[in-house]
Amino acid sequence: MARRTGRRPGNPDTREAILAAARETFAERGFDAASIRGIATSAGVDPALVHHYFGTKEQLFKTAMDFPIDPAEVLPQVLAGAPEQVGERLVRFFLRIWDSPAGAAGVALMRSAVSNDWSARLMREFVTTQMLRHVLPKFSADPAEAPLRASLVASQMAGLAMVRYVLKLEPLASAPPEVVVAAVAPNVQRYVTGELGAPPGQRE
Amino acid sequence: MARRTGRRPGNPDTREAILAAARETFAERGFDAASIRGIATSAGVDPALVHHYFGTKEQLFKTAMDFPIDPAEVLPQVLAGAPEQVGERLVRFFLRIWDSPAGAAGVALMRSAVSNDWSARLMREFVTTQMLRHVLPKFSADPAEAPLRASLVASQMAGLAMVRYVLKLEPLASAPPEVVVAAVAPNVQRYVTGELGAPPGQRE
Repeated sequence: MARRTGRRPGNPDTREAILAAARETFAERGFDAASIRGIATSAGVDPALVHHYFGTKEQLFKTAMDFPIDPAEVLPQVLAGAPEQVGERLVRFFLRIWDSPAGAAGVALMRSAVSNDWSARLMREFVTTQMLRHVLPKFSADPAEAPLRASLVASQMAGLAMVRYVLKLEPLASAPPEVVVAAVAPNVQRYVTGELGAPPGQRE
Repeated sequence: MARRTGRRPGNPDTREAILAAARETFAERGFDAASIRGIATSAGVDPALVHHYFGTKEQLFKTAMDFPIDPAEVLPQVLAGAPEQVGERLVRFFLRIWDSPAGAAGVALMRSAVSNDWSARLMREFVTTQMLRHVLPKFSADPAEAPLRASLVASQMAGLAMVRYVLKLEPLASAPPEVVVAAVAPNVQRYVTGELGAPPGQRE
């Protein structure tokens, strides 16, 4: 491990033990049922130390996931503004992150989430509690529809990451961001604000 | 290995060696540049033996990928019929495969493709040469647009597989097929036959 700044004191082994216990606990019990106390016990440390190193349970989860952005800060900004352009803002923001050096971290997270059920559970908990909870209230005039809309958006975003950054299928892998935005944003927009429920055959 | 029918005689070790050499060669050189002769040399066998066990290069590739369907047989059927319902047929067919026992093989393939660059290259070669080549001619009035359309469809399908079957994000993970078809098919349809190119802001 390289030298570190003075911002996060403490024994690196202890920090790592706490993060490992946190990942295991969040995956097994889910974010809501997991407790700092339980994680501390797993790691063999005092709960106060967990708080001291990592802050709140939410902050601990974010650190444990090593997610390249803080969804709680970023998503509300992306979703604010004209509702009829939320698809465009989402795709544009997504490409900015994934096309940047942070994209490598995204690929690593996706690999980890796909590679085993344990990581998939962890990612699902993260998406559900750290992303969707922040955005669901903005997602639909009908709150009952919001979770389906959110998981549909997730399906398009996950697939875009998969094809553009992991499989690198052309021409989508090398298409300029504006081409991707023009192609994908209207589909994301439909998931957020369009009609979803008509049975097939009743659409034009 | 369990007992086998009489259809594919030969030494199981030799068969496996050929399949391993085929996977490596297809990933490294691509489907078009790979040759039965080169694969045979890699595996240390005579090319005639490769043909005898696996048939053509295309058949060898399909066997090596262990893909749960034969795209060359299935995709033209799915794409035949009214062009304005191709999205619905694609999503419906996709769900039928993934919701069946074959879905487990799909998850395994996706895991393998995401887990390392080598498998990703193999999957990309497979999607490009065994799937897209069969469907591209049907994909668009404008042949120049067809590859982008196909990779956009792939992005939605891959993401649906990811969210519904790998991450198992609710409610999409448990939604009845008809709900998924109604929600996703119009988006796939737009990728196949809709307008893609207008810059953002010029759409309604």
